[in-house]
Amino acid sequence: MPVFGNDYGSEALQTESFFCCIERSVMLRAGIIGATGYTGIELVKLLRGHPAAQVAWLTSESYAGQQLSDVFPCPWSDPLLPLEDAPLADADVVFLCLPHAASMPAVAAVRSAGVKAIDLSADFRLSDTAVYQRWYNHTHNQAALLAEAVYGLPELHREPIRAASLVANPGCYATSVILGLWPLAKAGWLSGQVIADSKSGVSGAGRKPSLTTSFVEANENLSPYNIGYAHRHIAEMEQELRRGAGGRLQVASGKWQMVFSPHLLPVSRGILSTMYVNLPEGVDAAGVRAVYADAFDGEPFVHLLPAGRVATLQHAVNTNRCAIGLTFVPGTSTLILTSAIDNLLKGASGQAVQNMNVMFGLDETAGLPA
Amino acid sequence: MPVFGNDYGSEALQTESFFCCIERSVMLRAGIIGATGYTGIELVKLLRGHPAAQVAWLTSESYAGQQLSDVFPCPWSDPLLPLEDAPLADADVVFLCLPHAASMPAVAAVRSAGVKAIDLSADFRLSDTAVYQRWYNHTHNQAALLAEAVYGLPELHREPIRAASLVANPGCYATSVILGLWPLAKAGWLSGQVIADSKSGVSGAGRKPSLTTSFVEANENLSPYNIGYAHRHIAEMEQELRRGAGGRLQVASGKWQMVFSPHLLPVSRGILSTMYVNLPEGVDAAGVRAVYADAFDGEPFVHLLPAGRVATLQHAVNTNRCAIGLTFVPGTSTLILTSAIDNLLKGASGQAVQNMNVMFGLDETAGLPA
Amino acid sequence: MPVFGNDYGSEALQTESFFCCIERSVMLRAGIIGATGYTGIELVKLLRGHPAAQVAWLTSESYAGQQLSDVFPCPWSDPLLPLEDAPLADADVVFLCLPHAASMPAVAAVRSAGVKAIDLSADFRLSDTAVYQRWYNHTHNQAALLAEAVYGLPELHREPIRAASLVANPGCYATSVILGLWPLAKAGWLSGQVIADSKSGVSGAGRKPSLTTSFVEANENLSPYNIGYAHRHIAEMEQELRRGAGGRLQVASGKWQMVFSPHLLPVSRGILSTMYVNLPEGVDAAGVRAVYADAFDGEPFVHLLPAGRVATLQHAVNTNRCAIGLTFVPGTSTLILTSAIDNLLKGASGQAVQNMNVMFGLDETAGLPA
Amino acid sequence: MPVFGNDYGSEALQTESFFCCIERSVMLRAGIIGATGYTGIELVKLLRGHPAAQVAWLTSESYAGQQLSDVFPCPWSDPLLPLEDAPLADADVVFLCLPHAASMPAVAAVRSAGVKAIDLSADFRLSDTAVYQRWYNHTHNQAALLAEAVYGLPELHREPIRAASLVANPGCYATSVILGLWPLAKAGWLSGQVIADSKSGVSGAGRKPSLTTSFVEANENLSPYNIGYAHRHIAEMEQELRRGAGGRLQVASGKWQMVFSPHLLPVSRGILSTMYVNLPEGVDAAGVRAVYADAFDGEPFVHLLPAGRVATLQHAVNTNRCAIGLTFVPGTSTLILTSAIDNLLKGASGQAVQNMNVMFGLDETAGLPA
Repeated sequence: MPVFGNDYGSEALQTESFFCCIERSVMLRAGIIGATGYTGIELVKLLRGHPAAQVAWLTSESYAGQQLSDVFPCPWSDPLLPLEDAPLADADVVFLCLPHAASMPAVAAVRSAGVKAIDLSADFRLSDTAVYQRWYNHTHNQAALLAEAVYGLPELHREPIRAASLVANPGCYATSVILGLWPLAKAGWLSGQVIADSKSGVSGAGRKPSLTTSFVEANENLSPYNIGYAHRHIAEMEQELRRGAGGRLQVASGKWQMVFSPHLLPVSRGILSTMYVNLPEGVDAAGVRAVYADAFDGEPFVHLLPAGRVATLQHAVNTNRCAIGLTFVPGTSTLILTSAIDNLLKGASGQAVQNMNVMFGLDETAGLPA
Repeated sequence: MPVFGNDYGSEALQTESFFCCIERSVMLRAGIIGATGYTGIELVKLLRGHPAAQVAWLTSESYAGQQLSDVFPCPWSDPLLPLEDAPLADADVVFLCLPHAASMPAVAAVRSAGVKAIDLSADFRLSDTAVYQRWYNHTHNQAALLAEAVYGLPELHREPIRAASLVANPGCYATSVILGLWPLAKAGWLSGQVIADSKSGVSGAGRKPSLTTSFVEANENLSPYNIGYAHRHIAEMEQELRRGAGGRLQVASGKWQMVFSPHLLPVSRGILSTMYVNLPEGVDAAGVRAVYADAFDGEPFVHLLPAGRVATLQHAVNTNRCAIGLTFVPGTSTLILTSAIDNLLKGASGQAVQNMNVMFGLDETAGLPA
Repeated sequence: MPVFGNDYGSEALQTESFFCCIERSVMLRAGIIGATGYTGIELVKLLRGHPAAQVAWLTSESYAGQQLSDVFPCPWSDPLLPLEDAPLADADVVFLCLPHAASMPAVAAVRSAGVKAIDLSADFRLSDTAVYQRWYNHTHNQAALLAEAVYGLPELHREPIRAASLVANPGCYATSVILGLWPLAKAGWLSGQVIADSKSGVSGAGRKPSLTTSFVEANENLSPYNIGYAHRHIAEMEQELRRGAGGRLQVASGKWQMVFSPHLLPVSRGILSTMYVNLPEGVDAAGVRAVYADAFDGEPFVHLLPAGRVATLQHAVNTNRCAIGLTFVPGTSTLILTSAIDNLLKGASGQAVQNMNVMFGLDETAGLPA
Repeated sequence: MPVFGNDYGSEALQTESFFCCIERSVMLRAGIIGATGYTGIELVKLLRGHPAAQVAWLTSESYAGQQLSDVFPCPWSDPLLPLEDAPLADADVVFLCLPHAASMPAVAAVRSAGVKAIDLSADFRLSDTAVYQRWYNHTHNQAALLAEAVYGLPELHREPIRAASLVANPGCYATSVILGLWPLAKAGWLSGQVIADSKSGVSGAGRKPSLTTSFVEANENLSPYNIGYAHRHIAEMEQELRRGAGGRLQVASGKWQMVFSPHLLPVSRGILSTMYVNLPEGVDAAGVRAVYADAFDGEPFVHLLPAGRVATLQHAVNTNRCAIGLTFVPGTSTLILTSAIDNLLKGASGQAVQNMNVMFGLDETAGLPA
């Protein structure tokens, strides 16, 4: 018997009522502060396609008074308000896409208005203000808010996120590295020097023009920068992997130590991290694979690749997925992890919407390209 | 009791029941013949995100026996069947992504099985078999089917598409050129030599490896090809613009004549057509703009740009939109049209889904990135 | 008597003495004003590989006090002087790579120092100061110098360049368009509306960071800009093609009129102009080809393509060549010209070195990638 | 009054006689076997610009009977001969650009004709035939020739190359890795696991079309492949670094062991290797820098970057240079080396010309972009 076709009354009616239902359901209202950067416009696009949420208002300091279609090649005439004019309380959730330090007072204002906040800056990611001070060279002055913030990596902290009013959305590099290493940390297998050689598309540097990110400089080029132990996302990696390990960071081959080398890649979007880890004695490929399979069992946005496959940017770009490949170097204890995300989706705005979905009890995948 | 309704208590409950409703609703089942080219995988992605349709089965001759994730960097294990094993009738609609000529018998088989067909090849676009013979150097042997086929440009033929069982999805270049010129044709203002200088991303050439489309050859390059009056999409442009003009193609400045020059552009996706038209005497900018505004009034996927703006690839890439800009050359009767689409969306698979939506009475924008 | 040697015996000896000879020969000394833009660094590279010229000194206002290797990824420690410290007279020739208007006084200073000047700005390209005023919105205040300036397109003006002390190096778009159309102008076959649809790599926009030329905006994009009759290079095209026609610009199909539409292309370097011309009655393909073959006979840097070929960017990028293809549209009087150059070589610095070679009686191809 | 200089009569005369001398000097004649791949055309370009060498003849099996301008966008009409018709003895040197295994008999034929050979394949790089057998899965049947072959990395083996009749031109990845690590090997400081995370442009994969190297697959992507201990260039790295170390490979931190992870990068040309080495105790940054400065003292094609700088692709692309940066990770014994080359120049054809220059007593830099 056909699913539909000929022997029921009105196919059109049926689908129409289906769509009526969408229109009738109550939509979440989301404000976006700092809507004219790359993470801002990405949020707008995701929310416009979201079945249960919609854009409430947008702010932009640089383009205040203009409309979105003046700033991006899109047909959307949403007005761009200065932050001070934003009707904070006329939103169920606010996404903040501001530079670090600038986000702190804005988050405070949103929370004071009683609205849930998802902060895409680094300001609420590090629970230790001293660590924040050291890496960001700025004093944290919102310790109370920080105490209630949850690090927004749903694969690690889904339950706390569900209950959170303030979620600190992870950094892009941090997301690719932490998801790649976290199963090892949980298993207590993270030890010695761990090298993450990461490559990021140019949108990760933001929309403000600079020589480094200008076309002729970045095109047909590949530039390492801040390599070794200099990039701020190391702080997040260390915090989250330590938490994951729960005190079991191995010391067999010496103290666990991250070496992180970002490179600017001539693509618009995507991060690939190639990571080199030495496994403890007695740990074999099957054991590692089991640990990863277990850690990510049922995760809608982690794509654990089968044996023999490596993650590439195209596994992840334009999706909210993190693709992870496990490659064992024969005759050694070395595991090479390849971990790919879209820096603007799973590395920023996609993950922010995933967090929103979790916070509001929606289907976690709603509105997200799987 | 309503599937989704109005008087429930908590927000979480509300959104949960909302999503239940989606799962319970009846989904259209779509088969894809030739799923492992770029238009095929694009259809898979669109259908996976579609609220009212889903993939029923996929065929591939080159990769039969493998699964989709063996062929593309995705997590989807859909099996790839040889066409002869495809359960044609176990679908409400079949998309055909085959080369021209090869599509003819496959469409016939689909229609024999009583299933609606959307053909992405050129085989059913040209109503005159002599024209098909001339441009494609192949005899058309499905005249009866051809007679019932509708050219699937919803902006021109929405009502016939609604009633159609066989839709011939337009060519990518043709879509960008026809949408750009059609309002002029309708107004009876198309005359003399019309030049379309078009530039297409490399995915337009398909997935089969060739020297022309290999990275090192195409990258940092721009190559005109088949310029003048040699590219097959000219046949569609002439057919549809003649129909649009309804016999009123001006002859003031001589016979209407298309000159079409495609160029291979070093981007993955997108087409920009820059078109040069000489307007009849007495036609001014305001009149032209009014004609375009009227022609595309209410169209969800046409973005008519305001005065002073030109269409760029980024107005259209990763969306199902066609962006159109009107630029008047001062002191002349020359109108320059800029028309941009994503060749894989509005130029192929997106338009195919739009046609499916129209054919099945769904919201025309369902599942499509606006 | 030859400067270096004659009747030596062994090959090794011979080549050794050959290289000695290079070191012994007197080298032209070239100063570069504005060395830290893309045309400046390109000149440095060309001069470093030139067998008869060398860099004397470099100026930069933005990077004064630093050395070249601080500004570009190269090993060259040449100091960057502020212009006021440049030893103008310690050069046989000075290349000026300044913005228009800023170049005027600098050229005057160079000429006052008795040194030959090759100006890459627009300041001395237009012999009519009113035209300059109109297009550049700036009053020309060096009329005397302008009177002695020669438009530096060697294919058109080789003899005057040979004798010149001040050469105005042509614009990049202008070079591609003028070389493509000049044989028609000379033949008296240029008439009616001529459309030049041009596409340029991003380096044409200079090195100063801007949103338009930032990687994420330009990559995977194609943007028309200043289309129709708005780009300043039109003035050069009109001047030189009028001169080429010598009063014989056809009026058969109406007044000759340039329509010029530049597009920003996602490549670092290269310009392709696709040009549409209607030929006068009675002019056929063989006649046109003969006119082009004659016009460019013996030209070392014009590559006239055989019938059936079109110019692509890769015909020209990283060379000083202009590649020109002739395509006739069957059944029409339309000729499509494809003309490709490297905007930084034949479109700027390469042409400047070619001019230097001509001015100083050197082999015209010396130091230039053919 | 002289235009430049002071005490000679006629500038024009002087420079003319200079160029006469070039024409009069005897030019080396170079044959190229396999001229229609990317390394072949690169050799043609280099030789056409070389002051003391020229192309004698070219072979191509795929395009035999055509001319070079039929195969590449260039104006050069050189005929393409089948190998069997090549006048081997009518050359002073032959470059072989064939796949491994195919090169063996061709090198034998060239040497039988008494002509010096520079082989760009892997066939004569590995002095141990068992190692060749293992990595290339092919039996070496030219042991006698192999015995006389010299590994053509001039920075390591300049004197043997000077005397050689057969030079095995190094692999592209191997060049970037060996040059980066060789000073450490020589110092006896290479030990433990050394990780080379390398990224190469697509031209490294050759010109034969394949899905992997097609534009849409490689563009906006980054793909690891053969990572860990699987890529054939590891054999060269091990051989040359062992030789460099002369038996002093440290065992302090365990056996020296290469881990090598190539990635396909969306650029046409260039290789960047990011390498992670743990230095022996007691070795400090100043010591390491001194060792590198000493190892590359006077090398025309090694650009040792100052402290604080990292190598980027653009330090090397379109030059014959290898740029090397030294970055020390604070608080650790880890040295990060960044090493960049152009895979078609220093990684292939440029190095081959450098070898030719050395073999024939020419200036080592002649004809090479420095």
